[in-house]
Amino acid sequence: MIILGIDPGLANTGWGVIETSGSRFRCVAYGCVRSDGTMSLPARLMRIHESLCGVVDRYRPAEAAVESVYFSNNAKTAFATGQARGVAILAASGIPVGEYGPGEIKLAVVGTGDADKHQVQYMVRVVLGLDDEPKPDHAADALAAAICHANARSGARLARVAP
Amino acid sequence: MIILGIDPGLANTGWGVIETSGSRFRCVAYGCVRSDGTMSLPARLMRIHESLCGVVDRYRPAEAAVESVYFSNNAKTAFATGQARGVAILAASGIPVGEYGPGEIKLAVVGTGDADKHQVQYMVRVVLGLDDEPKPDHAADALAAAICHANARSGARLARVAP
Repeated sequence: MIILGIDPGLANTGWGVIETSGSRFRCVAYGCVRSDGTMSLPARLMRIHESLCGVVDRYRPAEAAVESVYFSNNAKTAFATGQARGVAILAASGIPVGEYGPGEIKLAVVGTGDADKHQVQYMVRVVLGLDDEPKPDHAADALAAAICHANARSGARLARVAP
Repeated sequence: MIILGIDPGLANTGWGVIETSGSRFRCVAYGCVRSDGTMSLPARLMRIHESLCGVVDRYRPAEAAVESVYFSNNAKTAFATGQARGVAILAASGIPVGEYGPGEIKLAVVGTGDADKHQVQYMVRVVLGLDDEPKPDHAADALAAAICHANARSGARLARVAP
């Protein structure tokens, strides 16, 4: 199964595509959509949406995963990120989209919910058998979301099989 | 000139289309896109986006206006609204989109930046020569944003003409 992970942000939206086969994960592709404040907001949102639509068209993921972010203290940043997340999810809206908290993703990839960023990047490289850690961070975080989704699906299957 | 105003929200996205001719404003159409928490987030965002794309296709606005909201104390609400705003702006991204603060919109419609909701609704009705106040509030707020944009454009024209 092909799974698309997304780490949305207005300046940097990371994406990563993995293929799962049983308990094996393979990295298919990853990248990051960048835009800066010199572009208008509509142009930035359009770039994120079109780039991710392109990824969906190209890799045909069966499902997608996105981090569910809640900012505790910065409403302005939350608002900006929310806009990017809205158009990112819209790009994947033809397929099932799973949402996972930061702790869930870290737990799935590193084995502990309070792992730091470098541990996540390191384990994404190990789990996917990559020669190097995926760059930038946003792409690694997107791949981590995809791995988390694959694990959650696998757990869900077991749960259905078990009485 | 046809102007589309948008008041984005995840549960209620108001929209309003006005036509300007010199200093005269006419209400062309308005409405509200609703969704609730029983729908998945991707489905809600898709509904907002598709509905507004339909409005743009139907009324062919030359420009659009949207309120620039900054929440001071509720990052979770800001994040949810941000997602709706992202897909709303995306629907209008083929045309220029103006952003206006709540105070600017009230000032443009009522004449004072700290007007309350009922004053805005009343003045939207008066300015557009409607028999009744537009309902729901979200549609009235969207029409107010469109009126603010029309005034701002008119001011910009005067500013360019004046030395």
